[in-house]
Amino acid sequence: MDARGTHIICELSGCDASTLADLDAVRDTMVLAAREANAEILKVAFHRFQPHGVSGVVVIAESHLSIHTWPESGYAALDFYTCGDHTDPWRACDFAAKALAAKSMLTTEIKRGIASANGRYTHVVVEHAGGTTVKRSA
Amino acid sequence: MDARGTHIICELSGCDASTLADLDAVRDTMVLAAREANAEILKVAFHRFQPHGVSGVVVIAESHLSIHTWPESGYAALDFYTCGDHTDPWRACDFAAKALAAKSMLTTEIKRGIASANGRYTHVVVEHAGGTTVKRSA
Repeated sequence: MDARGTHIICELSGCDASTLADLDAVRDTMVLAAREANAEILKVAFHRFQPHGVSGVVVIAESHLSIHTWPESGYAALDFYTCGDHTDPWRACDFAAKALAAKSMLTTEIKRGIASANGRYTHVVVEHAGGTTVKRSA
Repeated sequence: MDARGTHIICELSGCDASTLADLDAVRDTMVLAAREANAEILKVAFHRFQPHGVSGVVVIAESHLSIHTWPESGYAALDFYTCGDHTDPWRACDFAAKALAAKSMLTTEIKRGIASANGRYTHVVVEHAGGTTVKRSA
């Protein structure tokens, strides 16, 4: 299966509420996550909501990383989409889960941009992992 | 199923190559798509690659829209993620497909941020539509 990219859809639960509410902390987490994936950062755009919550995206040369946070619920919705063999979106995903102190993570991986014989591009949902407990070092 | 948001993963094939290579056209398409979804635009971040291709994201109050284009293949990878009952990401998706003159569209819809009894948030892949021909007015 020759895919142009890997897209991870990720729900993080039980995160640290104060971190999720802190624009600088959320942005820094996603920028560092992009570096962890070995991606080249092109644009960084984040917004803090009132009374709480942060949304933002890191546009990378290999696609993008995004996050939307609900501090009051300890919940964050993320996605990690990278193209090219030199990047690993799972490294970004695991990094962000740890940085936000998530107690659990649910992910689905989608292989994107798969060329069909008829010239159309498709994608395939290749993994759905429910309720995984995030591994963290003691 | 009480989900916080709807996330559409979308592959567009057979798009107009010159449009996919034009940063202004791609950005304008995504901004107008956000409006079509009835979303509130917060940030717009786009980048043009050399020799070709555009990547960009529109951060909206209700999450984000993104696009990555490969003009040489007539291919674009998009996602449309909105929260709240007042927005409709399918309107944005259909608008972008038409604006980019896509000959075919493949989508998967994911319902995100579904609260479980144990306090963890999950998501569910609710629709996978392969090789849909985009409806266009004559």
